[in-house]
Amino acid sequence: MNPVIDLLKSHRSIRKFTARALSPEQIDAIVTSAQAASTSSNVQAYSIIAVTEPDIKSEVARLAGSLAYVEQSGLFLVFCADLHRIRTATEQQGEMFHQNAESFIVATVDAALAAQNAAIAAESMGLGVCYIGSIRNEIEHVSRLLKLPELVYPVFGLTIGVPDQEPSFRPRLPKQAVVHQNAYQPDRIEAGIEAYDEVMHEYYKVRTNGKTLTNWSSGIADKYRKPVRGHMRSFLEAQGFRLD
Amino acid sequence: MNPVIDLLKSHRSIRKFTARALSPEQIDAIVTSAQAASTSSNVQAYSIIAVTEPDIKSEVARLAGSLAYVEQSGLFLVFCADLHRIRTATEQQGEMFHQNAESFIVATVDAALAAQNAAIAAESMGLGVCYIGSIRNEIEHVSRLLKLPELVYPVFGLTIGVPDQEPSFRPRLPKQAVVHQNAYQPDRIEAGIEAYDEVMHEYYKVRTNGKTLTNWSSGIADKYRKPVRGHMRSFLEAQGFRLD
Repeated sequence: MNPVIDLLKSHRSIRKFTARALSPEQIDAIVTSAQAASTSSNVQAYSIIAVTEPDIKSEVARLAGSLAYVEQSGLFLVFCADLHRIRTATEQQGEMFHQNAESFIVATVDAALAAQNAAIAAESMGLGVCYIGSIRNEIEHVSRLLKLPELVYPVFGLTIGVPDQEPSFRPRLPKQAVVHQNAYQPDRIEAGIEAYDEVMHEYYKVRTNGKTLTNWSSGIADKYRKPVRGHMRSFLEAQGFRLD
Repeated sequence: MNPVIDLLKSHRSIRKFTARALSPEQIDAIVTSAQAASTSSNVQAYSIIAVTEPDIKSEVARLAGSLAYVEQSGLFLVFCADLHRIRTATEQQGEMFHQNAESFIVATVDAALAAQNAAIAAESMGLGVCYIGSIRNEIEHVSRLLKLPELVYPVFGLTIGVPDQEPSFRPRLPKQAVVHQNAYQPDRIEAGIEAYDEVMHEYYKVRTNGKTLTNWSSGIADKYRKPVRGHMRSFLEAQGFRLD
């Protein structure tokens, strides 16, 4: 269709980088692109922590599950949902700041939109990226390390670097299980999952030389048959967020 | 830097479209790009409702605040956070599905990452976009209209079309108030807000021929001095989401 769409369609997460550092121009282009993303009513309710200090980077990498591709990244950004700044602005105007589940959603979405622009900017320069949701495994520790104030929480990290691998594209769910016309059609879901399970069974088999004979559903079931990161709500409350 | 970064940096929300419809190829490129975005552990916890039926589109436009640029869009997509599909997959495997604040965040972020890819794909084809968070004003009504099942909620709409206006780029907060090195620096926030208030005061003045003499902080304070969309939590609970 056009080179931008080709770029978007060719996304693969990169989990191995060369030791090369990013140039200041590359970092500036990534951050400026992030800031240019849409934001709800211009509230810009997110912040970015660029983790460049090696000791801090190592510690974040360890907390995220000892991920070498965080420690060895050319640039590691932590995207935070941030109501602290708009509370500051509100209080400076002599008003009381109100927050709830809605403002939590706004801040989380703003962080994600900015991050996706950063990811695309990086990929357009031939860099590779991987989102690091596992910083939420030890979210309290990560937040303390990055000195996040009340009303700021780390949604995910984004590790960026010069790719040292070329993984294949991972197939997505069939369109008919994701995109609906005018109304959600629940009766399409089961067939969509079934078709995708076959595709992913083949994908895992090929990728592991026949060693992994699983599919999408069994991976999902294995993940969600027990609570994942059950500490999140109490962490968010301790961090000052209200979800009412 | 490169044409992709130029595209990202030139984003402006478009709120006036010509009557031109999108081609099936354009729609396919937008949706395929959305699906190619990163997703947490490949859970793909989002769905897209393409609203094409004129009566439904009019009703969504009305519920979002009588927005002509929703009704007149070439394509209107509603991005939903969706735990329904992964619950279905989990239960098909004979397991019980567990959800909490963490899975709510995962689904909300997945929807936002996919949407931002859709927005960039559209803009790369010369189309204009605007996120429509105001579908959350009447979120229960919108959800009923689109027949969303339990564990699916509409995060925002994305209105897409051929631009019939050329708004200027809206300045963003200064980098030093958004991007921190290694640790959040709260002492930068007040100065950043002050500098931005001056920029935005000028921006509003020029854009309204001297009629609007406000700034960013006063707009933020005006929005957050009272609760915004206080119905969100009870809606989400009624829709089956647990935020614990």
